[in-house]
Amino acid sequence: MKQKLVFTDAPGAVIDSMAAAIRASKVFVIADTNTAEIVVPKLAVHSSAVASAQLIVTPAGDDNKNLDALSGIWQALNCGEATRSSLVINAGGGMVCDMGGFAAATFKRGLRFVNVPTTLLAAVDASVGGKTGINFNGCKNEVGAFAEPEASVISNEWLGTLAGNELMSGYAEMLKHGLLSSEDDFAMLLDYVPTPETASCGRMLEMIEKSVEVKRNIVENDFREQGLRKALNLGHTVGHALESMAMNERKHPVPHGYAVAWGMVAELVLSSMLMGFPSSALHQYSAYVKENYGTPDINCEDYPTLLGYMAHDKKNVAASEINFTLLSGIGCPRVDCVVDEDNIKAALDISRDLLGI
Amino acid sequence: MKQKLVFTDAPGAVIDSMAAAIRASKVFVIADTNTAEIVVPKLAVHSSAVASAQLIVTPAGDDNKNLDALSGIWQALNCGEATRSSLVINAGGGMVCDMGGFAAATFKRGLRFVNVPTTLLAAVDASVGGKTGINFNGCKNEVGAFAEPEASVISNEWLGTLAGNELMSGYAEMLKHGLLSSEDDFAMLLDYVPTPETASCGRMLEMIEKSVEVKRNIVENDFREQGLRKALNLGHTVGHALESMAMNERKHPVPHGYAVAWGMVAELVLSSMLMGFPSSALHQYSAYVKENYGTPDINCEDYPTLLGYMAHDKKNVAASEINFTLLSGIGCPRVDCVVDEDNIKAALDISRDLLGI
Repeated sequence: MKQKLVFTDAPGAVIDSMAAAIRASKVFVIADTNTAEIVVPKLAVHSSAVASAQLIVTPAGDDNKNLDALSGIWQALNCGEATRSSLVINAGGGMVCDMGGFAAATFKRGLRFVNVPTTLLAAVDASVGGKTGINFNGCKNEVGAFAEPEASVISNEWLGTLAGNELMSGYAEMLKHGLLSSEDDFAMLLDYVPTPETASCGRMLEMIEKSVEVKRNIVENDFREQGLRKALNLGHTVGHALESMAMNERKHPVPHGYAVAWGMVAELVLSSMLMGFPSSALHQYSAYVKENYGTPDINCEDYPTLLGYMAHDKKNVAASEINFTLLSGIGCPRVDCVVDEDNIKAALDISRDLLGI
Repeated sequence: MKQKLVFTDAPGAVIDSMAAAIRASKVFVIADTNTAEIVVPKLAVHSSAVASAQLIVTPAGDDNKNLDALSGIWQALNCGEATRSSLVINAGGGMVCDMGGFAAATFKRGLRFVNVPTTLLAAVDASVGGKTGINFNGCKNEVGAFAEPEASVISNEWLGTLAGNELMSGYAEMLKHGLLSSEDDFAMLLDYVPTPETASCGRMLEMIEKSVEVKRNIVENDFREQGLRKALNLGHTVGHALESMAMNERKHPVPHGYAVAWGMVAELVLSSMLMGFPSSALHQYSAYVKENYGTPDINCEDYPTLLGYMAHDKKNVAASEINFTLLSGIGCPRVDCVVDEDNIKAALDISRDLLGI
């Protein structure tokens, strides 16, 4: 894979040179109702490609990452006479990059696209890996494709405008990359708490670059998620279940990264129970999560619902088995760990103790 | 690319050995309302994988190759708890293979699928090349992906059940492959007219195998349609325009292959005008078409409409240019030929003369 990652404080100029290099005959910008107002005008000041592009605006929010909105984007590309030599620029968070990437990848069987992630989560997570898609029938990312953007243009220009919980949401994926990488990386991450005041500084852009590199190394060695790449699912089996329950049963959605941060507590407990993951690191991590992410709204009566969501996870080989990525140590992932329900329930109990729920 | 092509008179047994080899945890069969009745029960007799599969039936006809039907298939896969280790079998013509392939390729970002083409057109055209997709907003194949089936299982078992015009429709793509291949292949094809009585005989299966081989050689050298593969567009710039006009303006759809057979007359005229294609071969071809395909319902007042459709073709680099694949001789394609409107109108005039319209 040769996807380009550009870390820059001048995203507009980078986009213009890309549009020129690939000789785009026409440019479309996909944004949500927020980034169309806040990000696109800023980009347009320094990018004639963006300034002259056709703007496609889609409703903000992950519950609008759906077939209706996707169909609306296809419609706009059709009416705008997009051809295979057009360029699509996705300017937004993970929702815009995921759905816009899928729309581009499937319009006329594939237009080229560039991602401009505007949240920390999108910068460290959605910008690499080529996962595109939409939610369908209440299931997250149920429909989609693996499709690489021409480039991801990652800038700290937008990070200062994010709310504190948006930063923490993205930081959870950085913590995950630290756990998959090395004790040094992990210690460095636990020693820092991002805030809107400091997020646009140089140190943060360096940490993002390091974090994205961890993900890119894993993805490049396993693009279609056959083996190693499953390491990136750490925290996500329990995390997705918590996220689905918050949205569907509690009617009170939680940010993706918060669900992952909590999910990693449970999955590190399992790692400790079954794979010899050091309990000192587990305790350091859960203390950081408790202090900076608070606690999820669950009790033991929720376990059957949570297990039901876990059983529906894409990562399962058979529909009845629940599959995890666990760690035998920091930097030592073990993929395809099937865990039985009793052990999962025990891990949820211990996690609630650690978090003081 | 390592897509498997299997030419067989025992498709059921072949499917069973494939489902076993890839250890499919669950099997889904996608069929249209016709093939669900005629083909699937026959397959099920000799295939326990098909007999025990979950059947997904979609309405027949190319105008049902749309977002509603696609969404219905995704829904059925979701409700049927398909996982990434499930197998999808598309049993039908090009419509089922195209849409079923796209549904499979995008469900959970990619299930494996096998095509069982049941028409001659699907056997020689849709079975190779990995083009999947649906029509959208009145435009053919506007949304889709390049995705290879695990295998295409091509059998002459179904050909005897096809109507004469369905056979001729598929045969047009075989004529195209002959024009792209060699004078011998082309002469052999002009020397034969398929009929329901003879279509399931061994000679036909051999001719199909030879024809598919021509396409496969081209596709394997250029999977993403950057250059050589555009050779396969011969006849399709004019053909798609005739097909769209028949459907939208005339409200009287014509079979795809008929439109291509007629379209190739016009494009061989252009080849003769601009590339030195021998006029003897042009006359042989147009005589065969006139005798076996009849004539399209067009007159000179239709030219602006036809040119409008041609200008919307996916193959155009810029929206304003009309792009053709032409031949400088049999077996000598020239891709990316931009032709101006006056020449196209002249070629349509000459084509009408040749066909006696």
